[in-house]
Amino acid sequence: MRRAMARAAVGDDDYGEDPTVNELQHLAARIMGTEDALFVPTATMANLIAVMCHCQRRGAQLLLGREAHLHVYEHGGVAQVAGVHFQALPDLPDGTFDLDQLELTIREAHGSRYHPRPELICLENTHSSAGGRALPLAYLQQVRLLADRYGLQVHMDGARLMNAAVAQGVEPAQITQHCDSVSLCFSKGLGAPAGAVLAGRREFVAEAWRVRKLLGGGMRQAGVLAAAARLGLEHAETTLRRDHDNARRFAQGVQELNSPLCSVNLTAVETNIVLVGVKGDWPSPTELCERMQAVSEEEVAETGHAVSVLLFPWSARSLRAVWHWNISAHDTELAKNKLDFVARKCQEKLALGLGTSPWSTGGD
Amino acid sequence: MRRAMARAAVGDDDYGEDPTVNELQHLAARIMGTEDALFVPTATMANLIAVMCHCQRRGAQLLLGREAHLHVYEHGGVAQVAGVHFQALPDLPDGTFDLDQLELTIREAHGSRYHPRPELICLENTHSSAGGRALPLAYLQQVRLLADRYGLQVHMDGARLMNAAVAQGVEPAQITQHCDSVSLCFSKGLGAPAGAVLAGRREFVAEAWRVRKLLGGGMRQAGVLAAAARLGLEHAETTLRRDHDNARRFAQGVQELNSPLCSVNLTAVETNIVLVGVKGDWPSPTELCERMQAVSEEEVAETGHAVSVLLFPWSARSLRAVWHWNISAHDTELAKNKLDFVARKCQEKLALGLGTSPWSTGGD
Amino acid sequence: MRRAMARAAVGDDDYGEDPTVNELQHLAARIMGTEDALFVPTATMANLIAVMCHCQRRGAQLLLGREAHLHVYEHGGVAQVAGVHFQALPDLPDGTFDLDQLELTIREAHGSRYHPRPELICLENTHSSAGGRALPLAYLQQVRLLADRYGLQVHMDGARLMNAAVAQGVEPAQITQHCDSVSLCFSKGLGAPAGAVLAGRREFVAEAWRVRKLLGGGMRQAGVLAAAARLGLEHAETTLRRDHDNARRFAQGVQELNSPLCSVNLTAVETNIVLVGVKGDWPSPTELCERMQAVSEEEVAETGHAVSVLLFPWSARSLRAVWHWNISAHDTELAKNKLDFVARKCQEKLALGLGTSPWSTGGD
Amino acid sequence: MRRAMARAAVGDDDYGEDPTVNELQHLAARIMGTEDALFVPTATMANLIAVMCHCQRRGAQLLLGREAHLHVYEHGGVAQVAGVHFQALPDLPDGTFDLDQLELTIREAHGSRYHPRPELICLENTHSSAGGRALPLAYLQQVRLLADRYGLQVHMDGARLMNAAVAQGVEPAQITQHCDSVSLCFSKGLGAPAGAVLAGRREFVAEAWRVRKLLGGGMRQAGVLAAAARLGLEHAETTLRRDHDNARRFAQGVQELNSPLCSVNLTAVETNIVLVGVKGDWPSPTELCERMQAVSEEEVAETGHAVSVLLFPWSARSLRAVWHWNISAHDTELAKNKLDFVARKCQEKLALGLGTSPWSTGGD
Repeated sequence: MRRAMARAAVGDDDYGEDPTVNELQHLAARIMGTEDALFVPTATMANLIAVMCHCQRRGAQLLLGREAHLHVYEHGGVAQVAGVHFQALPDLPDGTFDLDQLELTIREAHGSRYHPRPELICLENTHSSAGGRALPLAYLQQVRLLADRYGLQVHMDGARLMNAAVAQGVEPAQITQHCDSVSLCFSKGLGAPAGAVLAGRREFVAEAWRVRKLLGGGMRQAGVLAAAARLGLEHAETTLRRDHDNARRFAQGVQELNSPLCSVNLTAVETNIVLVGVKGDWPSPTELCERMQAVSEEEVAETGHAVSVLLFPWSARSLRAVWHWNISAHDTELAKNKLDFVARKCQEKLALGLGTSPWSTGGD
Repeated sequence: MRRAMARAAVGDDDYGEDPTVNELQHLAARIMGTEDALFVPTATMANLIAVMCHCQRRGAQLLLGREAHLHVYEHGGVAQVAGVHFQALPDLPDGTFDLDQLELTIREAHGSRYHPRPELICLENTHSSAGGRALPLAYLQQVRLLADRYGLQVHMDGARLMNAAVAQGVEPAQITQHCDSVSLCFSKGLGAPAGAVLAGRREFVAEAWRVRKLLGGGMRQAGVLAAAARLGLEHAETTLRRDHDNARRFAQGVQELNSPLCSVNLTAVETNIVLVGVKGDWPSPTELCERMQAVSEEEVAETGHAVSVLLFPWSARSLRAVWHWNISAHDTELAKNKLDFVARKCQEKLALGLGTSPWSTGGD
Repeated sequence: MRRAMARAAVGDDDYGEDPTVNELQHLAARIMGTEDALFVPTATMANLIAVMCHCQRRGAQLLLGREAHLHVYEHGGVAQVAGVHFQALPDLPDGTFDLDQLELTIREAHGSRYHPRPELICLENTHSSAGGRALPLAYLQQVRLLADRYGLQVHMDGARLMNAAVAQGVEPAQITQHCDSVSLCFSKGLGAPAGAVLAGRREFVAEAWRVRKLLGGGMRQAGVLAAAARLGLEHAETTLRRDHDNARRFAQGVQELNSPLCSVNLTAVETNIVLVGVKGDWPSPTELCERMQAVSEEEVAETGHAVSVLLFPWSARSLRAVWHWNISAHDTELAKNKLDFVARKCQEKLALGLGTSPWSTGGD
Repeated sequence: MRRAMARAAVGDDDYGEDPTVNELQHLAARIMGTEDALFVPTATMANLIAVMCHCQRRGAQLLLGREAHLHVYEHGGVAQVAGVHFQALPDLPDGTFDLDQLELTIREAHGSRYHPRPELICLENTHSSAGGRALPLAYLQQVRLLADRYGLQVHMDGARLMNAAVAQGVEPAQITQHCDSVSLCFSKGLGAPAGAVLAGRREFVAEAWRVRKLLGGGMRQAGVLAAAARLGLEHAETTLRRDHDNARRFAQGVQELNSPLCSVNLTAVETNIVLVGVKGDWPSPTELCERMQAVSEEEVAETGHAVSVLLFPWSARSLRAVWHWNISAHDTELAKNKLDFVARKCQEKLALGLGTSPWSTGGD
């Protein structure tokens, strides 16, 4: 990938003259079945531009999930920068909305001059908070029908769209056919250092070009980044399938541990994310993550390995593991063994009555 | 009130020279126990100004109720005009938030550079969607403590603040002591044709003056409106107490009807609003409202009265009745009798198997 | 006017049910030859709403005069609230733009994806900074042609539109025919306590209704204000003609004084504003205004009158006098005599070598 | 530079873990004498973030040059995204403001509650529209004093700051000491493919981090871009001095041509930009640029070279030439000769009475 970057043919993308960027944009548009696509620095900007381009009228309203990345993590750009009012709907465990509630929310405001105007629905696919669940195709079709019924647009935050396609065994375009626009991130599972793409109809992308400029996202010789992104996109199917296999293998391993401390819901593991449920009062997800990262002499002595695993405390009762292109099957095996070791050590402490509360002062 | 308007001494309020406006502002500040107050055309503008003055930093976040007037009805000015991101929390039946959830929501973002900054909590008192419930004083104190713990401000949408004070038998200032700012509407229960006031610290009100100008709310000889508002405010205790008595009497009357079609939760009737629950498949709240408004020959023949009552279909299972200064005890009695008449007529239809569904083609 | 307010039939204008507001809106629309009109609290809000309704697309640009009220005094709402970029053009002495420069500025950005999109031209008529000059009808027609050539809209800040119509001896609609929207203020020359109107096409006014709501400008029983506004509008021709006559008489009086301290350009006095040029180093416009307002024993002794005249220091070399409905011909005569007295007294001081600098400690 | 990019050590800059980005930021802060610095995708974003961080209060006003890049080319982000009102001042030929006018503009609004609040002055250095003029150090000091007197901040759009430093023979920090913040672009004269930096006080940069995130400018492994930027910055002095020498040599060459068609003001050539004045009715700057780019058989036959020179028509009477790191002294010599050739050919046509007007149908 670095070699591709070093060799990339570049030009001034501000004048549309960077051949590597142009090729990447064509490739992305072809894969997602859209008329055009635009390279941007981040998926955050791709989503912000999408909202700004779809919601041009005063009083436009956006419907999104309460746990959506766009709502929680993107610094409220939708309100702050785009000036768009939003309705945050509850996300169901599989990452979808209750369609009746979605329709009810639209109808409450639709056609009323006392309410903002619902104009855009944002979906996230795969859905990060739901543990990387891919949105069912039938659901996407129903959202499309609902949107058409009330004259709304649909944008897909497809940062992990390629994971959804690989998991469902379909072409990405079969997923995106139900959307007016879609963003895709190159720097997560696809392994590129930076960059994302926003795809949609030709006119929409022309408008997106202007907004990218406005936000300061129009880089000059962006081809050096586009070269890496292109490689990531071309090899996505292979690398993501491996990630998904590794994630599933790890989840199965956790299940087989049959530990009283942690568990996993195998049917929810569809892509490269595993949410591990943490049971009991101790250790907390945060402490479990710390123990997975730390390496002790005891570990080396007992297992012959010194393994540091980076996990993320996700909620009060869960932690999150994510796979990407440079985590191998062997790394996954080591991670599972490390969890086995950590879980056993914790249970030994619990058996001794230690560690049962945050105030325990035992053998640590 | 019209006489007061016709006689009001006025001046150019843009230069602070309208004596009637100045007197009203002093009176309102004194009643609410704040340093200063500002007259504005509407409560919607009062709330919008409050949000704009409290949330000055980029990335400021507002916490409000999902059913709050500010969220649902004010055209999303918070996002559109103020550019402020908001988190909409579920409203409990008594108009309060779950304090644990409120704290959790603040903590999720507090001090994190990956999240917007929670800076303002908006309360609505009395709470319109909850049926005019007055927020408990102990609850207000707890919200204040929570806000102080995390450095947030508290704004009260007090459009119906005077109703809360009358219902709780306290001075308005005892309620507003827990808030940094409060708005109050003169055109609802207080009976003035237009106008509202925004109260708070001197510096806050000076800033609010600028934002009022910016939004185009700085009228010249506003004294003609202020004169009416002042009368309304001075007589608030008397008129609102009567409204509350009438509302309660109506609610009791509904309960005594003991009708299979409608019911009322008496403990929820605290001020001038009554939510009437509508049971059964027919008539719907909308149809019931239509029948309460319409006058038939049958009604005149049977009751000797022709009474038209304006109610509002509130949800799929309820309708809403609101009292204001020119609805008398006698009017209330007539309204209750009308409901008795309408309910009986509906039951007769139901007994004949008519009207049981929207598709019924019977006697109508 | 107070009587009209006290007797006005009112209703809830938020539901379009205030008959007095509706009548005023119809009257205003008829007078300005537009399909519809909307009552708002202030001319500032009328202009802000106009910009927000015309400039809906991201990147919209507004062209206005550097000295326009909208640019200088309205707290930058165009940028702050509407988020609209603007190009401020130099105003010529008669309140017009140089049409070549206007076209050049539009062409620089028109059709370029590297520039904001010019979408709206704002004119001010009469032009306040230019001393109440009425924009020539031929000029308005040329602006219209230019706007059409590049697909722009034209909004007229017609706070003093009626003055322009009276001065030019035409129907207001002959002026507004060249514009897509126009605002009109009731609280300046027309003498009403508050209120303004925004007029334009039916769809534009429907959109304006929503934005008025958003900004908090939708009052309930606004009829009490509309009643006064209507009276002002109906009598505008008579009262404004008198104002213009008085202004001209005053200007002629100043000219006849032939004072070395002040002068007036009679050809620039077209309506109810007189800019008085202040010559020499002393007194400054500010000091001259102070002396016109102050009443001294000397004045009473010498002239037999105690007259306080409120003028406004306008620039480093001028002050401004404005006429409105309750300044009579007699008041005007008194004001002219006061200026004569003040000018003579100043000259006497100058002759004595006093008052020539801010540090003078002479006879005051 | 490509090699440096291929070898760069990277990490997730969203967590501050990219060592190459961190090193670049430290280096930039050290060079500009600021506490901290932040890497961003473009100079446009750097400027937008600076305005958003300095202007946090409602009603903040920015003072900038009418021809400033920030005003003309950045899609009005100041108004659209930042919601900041601006006053555009005339730029003098050397890129400075008239300081009296600047002060007058500030004073008009300073402390007045009827005006927006002047809070930030933006300078551009070197000044692009002025032909790459470096702002005099004494001028910067005076702006600083003025800003301090009225409590304003000063931001420098220093896209070409290094050019100014090289031209003035001072350390960049001597220039930036007078500013609260400064942006610097890596992709123009410094030759990197993309990226810019925003520098200032620690707290300011922490705030800038949040706004970068908000706008979608926070890239993950940004080190690949930072590696190139660092090289560009380290070699800036050498490469820019060469650019300046080449530009000056070209300008002298144009002067020596002594052509009736074009001329150059040598004293205005301070850095890497040359504005070539175009005299006479024909050829226009646009046509001259086309002729400099086109290669004809005649040119090859006559000069033995086929040289295509990319110039930019700048105004109705000038064109612009810019030097960057991969234009050599030899290239410059060729460009000068090409201009000689083109100018002679044009004169020959003029002598034959051809090409004198756009309607000429002569020998072309």
